[in-house]
Amino acid sequence: MPLNSLNADVDMSEITHVYPILWREDHILLIDQTRLPREYGLVEIRRSEDLAEAIRTMIVRGAPAIGVAASYGMYMGAKELGEVDRATFLSKLEDVAEMLRGTRPTAVNLFWAIERMMGAVQDSREIQADKLVAVLLKEAQAIHLSDLETCYRIGEQGLGVLPESPSKLRIMTHCNTGSLATAGYGTALGVVRSAHRRGRLERVYAGETRPRLQGAKLTAWECVQEDIPVTLITDSMAAHCMNQGRIDVVIVGADRIAANGDTANKIGTYGLALVAKAHNIPFYVAAPISTVDFALADGSQIPIEERDPAEIAQIEGEPICPAGAEFYNPAFDVTPAELITGVITEEGCVTPEELSTLKDSAHASVR
Amino acid sequence: MPLNSLNADVDMSEITHVYPILWREDHILLIDQTRLPREYGLVEIRRSEDLAEAIRTMIVRGAPAIGVAASYGMYMGAKELGEVDRATFLSKLEDVAEMLRGTRPTAVNLFWAIERMMGAVQDSREIQADKLVAVLLKEAQAIHLSDLETCYRIGEQGLGVLPESPSKLRIMTHCNTGSLATAGYGTALGVVRSAHRRGRLERVYAGETRPRLQGAKLTAWECVQEDIPVTLITDSMAAHCMNQGRIDVVIVGADRIAANGDTANKIGTYGLALVAKAHNIPFYVAAPISTVDFALADGSQIPIEERDPAEIAQIEGEPICPAGAEFYNPAFDVTPAELITGVITEEGCVTPEELSTLKDSAHASVR
Repeated sequence: MPLNSLNADVDMSEITHVYPILWREDHILLIDQTRLPREYGLVEIRRSEDLAEAIRTMIVRGAPAIGVAASYGMYMGAKELGEVDRATFLSKLEDVAEMLRGTRPTAVNLFWAIERMMGAVQDSREIQADKLVAVLLKEAQAIHLSDLETCYRIGEQGLGVLPESPSKLRIMTHCNTGSLATAGYGTALGVVRSAHRRGRLERVYAGETRPRLQGAKLTAWECVQEDIPVTLITDSMAAHCMNQGRIDVVIVGADRIAANGDTANKIGTYGLALVAKAHNIPFYVAAPISTVDFALADGSQIPIEERDPAEIAQIEGEPICPAGAEFYNPAFDVTPAELITGVITEEGCVTPEELSTLKDSAHASVR
Repeated sequence: MPLNSLNADVDMSEITHVYPILWREDHILLIDQTRLPREYGLVEIRRSEDLAEAIRTMIVRGAPAIGVAASYGMYMGAKELGEVDRATFLSKLEDVAEMLRGTRPTAVNLFWAIERMMGAVQDSREIQADKLVAVLLKEAQAIHLSDLETCYRIGEQGLGVLPESPSKLRIMTHCNTGSLATAGYGTALGVVRSAHRRGRLERVYAGETRPRLQGAKLTAWECVQEDIPVTLITDSMAAHCMNQGRIDVVIVGADRIAANGDTANKIGTYGLALVAKAHNIPFYVAAPISTVDFALADGSQIPIEERDPAEIAQIEGEPICPAGAEFYNPAFDVTPAELITGVITEEGCVTPEELSTLKDSAHASVR
């Protein structure tokens, strides 16, 4: 992957060395995020169905990374169609799209990437299946590289809105929004990275993010890789830390942002926003514009995925509670716009009310 | 233990069959709460030092249960003194008290019970060591039985303040405040028990209570034992559940309540109170009057125990995060009085401002 050619000013390979998705000639390699931090392993994916399963089981996760992975899934699915005519190709590609759409319901980047891939073949005048497959590969790689650049720009934009005082900030974040959740660099954790590179970071407080512990397993791992000072706390400690004056600003990612700014993100984000508000601590969402779902008026229409109760009932495969208890395991919650100080995108930071000004950029990036 | 003789109206043995502390002739048996729910095992404790270690390692935990256990610890320590004169006895008993006071700093019931035990020997006219030991045993048993009765009364008092609608309530709680945290029956979970017995409980939502998972391991276990419907959630899901209208009232326990009503309780309580407030959901603290520390004007003076980072870094002995991360592990936080709807005690439910009216009852129970 030509990572160094993105931006004349930046050698991206110096910024991060963790890429969750790697393109290799005719297949992709995924870092198996279910095995981190205990072991770093790569999973080879060559078939669209295996890609769908990797999204479902969270081998690859994080809204932008899911979008990139699904793009390659569309390419793989197209390749599996063989030599068919254009009409059949388009019709069967829609089946692949439908299978991929069914993997996880909340993150909009998945649907956005699939739509962009469908658009690429629809716009193309090619009629031979192998040529259409080539169009899809090119589009997937464009989405892949563009996400990396977008993250880097989000990081830089975020720098501009960080509180000026203190000079070195204590930034709290939730879940994993880093290299592992994107093509690389990250969204909210990208802002943390940029702050660290510019000497503006005292430390990042990472909520462990039960039930799947992405904060403990992934965010802490990424930070340790790059010597970013990280303090891990349980999710329930955030309010106490804020009350003690340990947190200057909160930055989280997003899985889907409605047109009014209501934001679906990893379960626990809403509570974190409420306690930040109670302590007058700025609360930012960092996400690519592709995360904004302009078709949804507000957050009440965002579907919230419920996952396997075993994620709560067991930790590392060990039961932690008695048989007979019941469980409720929503994977996301919705933070209302009024709790959000600003949304940091690649085009700049806007208030939730100003989101509509980004609509043209969103359309530009789809075509 | 003559559990049935507490109250003419109530056969206590029908109410709960879990007692974390059992008196057996000349020693106590503790349910090993670090092994639940995987196995139910009893630990025999005969020496004051072993009792102190059992408190430190949380074989026995929960503010009221710690108070009861420490009372027996005072008796055991006294017995170990052998035949000494009264002055030596009192002086050496103070050393035992000091050792026990050093086990856990936040829960005031520990200090309250030790003071009451010291008071019992000081008030006694006995001069022989064995007679003084007998005074201490009698006092420990009185504290033990009185805590059981107190919990039962808290449960009944709580019934009176529960919202009238809906007829069957969804009660959210945090940590474990049940039989296991007291001599039996529980404080906040005692109110849940009373509600269940009177047909007023739809279900209890238990926050799992990271890092030590007392909600998952102990509260869920107790509820399952008695067929109390329990839904386990991660701590970060509380705000989302409230926003969905799943919670009617929150009831938590307390480790120390300052004179103004500020309440130290298990880490996460403060955040839970903030999100309850944001949803206009009543938030009650249930605790015996012995939990009120009238000597402290407000919560800022309550010492907050910090525990081993391994509690966050590992689950069931398995590391969940990479080497190189740092940790912050406060075991408690302080919920300010203005977030507390009422404090449910054995003498009735009072607002934080009315706490001072209970001061006479507190003194009466010490002597």
